[in-house]
Amino acid sequence: MTERNRCWVLAEHPDGMPDLSNFRMEERALPILEEGQVLGKSRWLSVDPYMRGRISKQANYAGGVSIGEVMHGAAVAEVIDSRHPDWKPGDLFETIGFGWQDYAAVDGDALTRVDPELGPEHAWLSYLGMPGLTALIALELIGQIKQGDTVVVSAASGAVGQVVGQIAKIMGGNAVAVASSQEKLDWCREIGFDVGINYREEPDLKAAIAHACPTGVDVFFDNTAGPIHDAVMNNLAVGARIIICGTISLAGQFEKPDMGERFLRKILVARARMEGFLIFDHLDKYDAARRQLALWASAGMLQFKTDILDGIESMPQAFINILTSKNFGKQVVRI
Amino acid sequence: MTERNRCWVLAEHPDGMPDLSNFRMEERALPILEEGQVLGKSRWLSVDPYMRGRISKQANYAGGVSIGEVMHGAAVAEVIDSRHPDWKPGDLFETIGFGWQDYAAVDGDALTRVDPELGPEHAWLSYLGMPGLTALIALELIGQIKQGDTVVVSAASGAVGQVVGQIAKIMGGNAVAVASSQEKLDWCREIGFDVGINYREEPDLKAAIAHACPTGVDVFFDNTAGPIHDAVMNNLAVGARIIICGTISLAGQFEKPDMGERFLRKILVARARMEGFLIFDHLDKYDAARRQLALWASAGMLQFKTDILDGIESMPQAFINILTSKNFGKQVVRI
Repeated sequence: MTERNRCWVLAEHPDGMPDLSNFRMEERALPILEEGQVLGKSRWLSVDPYMRGRISKQANYAGGVSIGEVMHGAAVAEVIDSRHPDWKPGDLFETIGFGWQDYAAVDGDALTRVDPELGPEHAWLSYLGMPGLTALIALELIGQIKQGDTVVVSAASGAVGQVVGQIAKIMGGNAVAVASSQEKLDWCREIGFDVGINYREEPDLKAAIAHACPTGVDVFFDNTAGPIHDAVMNNLAVGARIIICGTISLAGQFEKPDMGERFLRKILVARARMEGFLIFDHLDKYDAARRQLALWASAGMLQFKTDILDGIESMPQAFINILTSKNFGKQVVRI
Repeated sequence: MTERNRCWVLAEHPDGMPDLSNFRMEERALPILEEGQVLGKSRWLSVDPYMRGRISKQANYAGGVSIGEVMHGAAVAEVIDSRHPDWKPGDLFETIGFGWQDYAAVDGDALTRVDPELGPEHAWLSYLGMPGLTALIALELIGQIKQGDTVVVSAASGAVGQVVGQIAKIMGGNAVAVASSQEKLDWCREIGFDVGINYREEPDLKAAIAHACPTGVDVFFDNTAGPIHDAVMNNLAVGARIIICGTISLAGQFEKPDMGERFLRKILVARARMEGFLIFDHLDKYDAARRQLALWASAGMLQFKTDILDGIESMPQAFINILTSKNFGKQVVRI
């Protein structure tokens, strides 16, 4: 093959909010396959908030990206060549370990088969992939929604949030969406959220949460940290569960400590439980959760909005869009 | 009876650290017994950090004390008169609902019988009472110590802390004491803590915790909030459990928001669980836990230090002492 592999590499670690200058495109030779690997050609690339942590200089829960290294990221890709018995050219797979590039050589044992009968290809990056699995498994393990619980979801139209709200309804809860525009909230209402709060338009977010949650917040699915977190923590019901899933509002100040009001007395008074959640700890639950999500989707109980940009050139912009709430729905890039 | 009942009432809500002027002694007539009640004469009165919350103007997890109302608090008392079939004069009981006074008429159904064979009378206010029960039940429900876990305890020589450290050792953990003087730490080492940190003498508390906990903190029993909390939160091991049991370092700023560094990213990266704990939610576990604590004490596996002041006149000072770390061990007042 004489084709070249376009790759986005990290040009420099961002200081604050990432911008286009942090990334550089390079053309490289196609990787040589080793025994057990397959060569994939990307069809859909994913950008996800956790990648902000990986390009920080600070230690984090996953190995960071070094300067000059290809950006990490998930993809749905097609097998072009295979040295693994389970995979043949034309097969489709999803993997978190693909990277922002046209081609990657990946371990055939670590791939998820994409079954187009269960949903569109890019669903493996959204409601049948990491965001959907995160929503369902975190709600099961930490959220433990009971009939009538009030469930507040930040970044509610985002990749994780939209699934959280719909599952909250399926589990018998009342779902309160917090998002950055009326358009997003209108859609949240369409898919089943009971109430919507536009955090950019509320002069008193704490009062808005109190108004939307008259008996307090039983479950808070926190995708953002920041001011939404603060407003919800002032409205906890006794026994509240708080899932710390993302901190995207800190994307522009990642290198600095997050200063503000602490809520230890609120946690004590409410006997609240706050827990950090990372989907990669729960590989053993993926298959069952994915089947459940596919079932709900096929029954019309789970809708999903995807925000599609075209061309690998768009990757840095797509990433910046999710950090600045410019996307609407799960952000993917079609290659 | 012509005896008078000396009562401490709340004279005014404190603004910041309570002082003696917040309390006023009154002499009142002895209460008249109603059917089902017993008249108790206090022998030991307790002061506990949670009472700081009850005299705040702010809402809290228990009804607050009003101006002119007798201060709330637990006691070990002797039955003087009874209109309840289970109680006769001379019996000893413990109740959280006694108050800072010589005499109280209390519901005979809501009392804990004091069995002098299980421990000294005042133990029902310490290791056989609320502090001991708090330590054991919170460690069982939230701490879930595994062999080799590193367990950090703030206010380690206090009523709850000293029991936590000893149970942590019984459960197979390594116990790290944080306290306010070398004398307290020496005693913590005597009863089994592995390491002691004097937070008043450490120029870099975060580094001191890191040094004492080279593999990170698995369980943090937080009785204080404040700078010790901050230092520990910077040293979490993956899967850490943080028990928010008390916030005594905030006693002097109770009416203001607690500002400082927030640790949402640390909680996320460590997939930590932080949970508020209030013993009053777990009445159903008291009996079994108390038997366990008495067994450990009789076997010499659980030691306990009590700081005794004499006379009901001492109550406000005893209370202020625990808020300012002047006590050494569980603070009680002998009447």
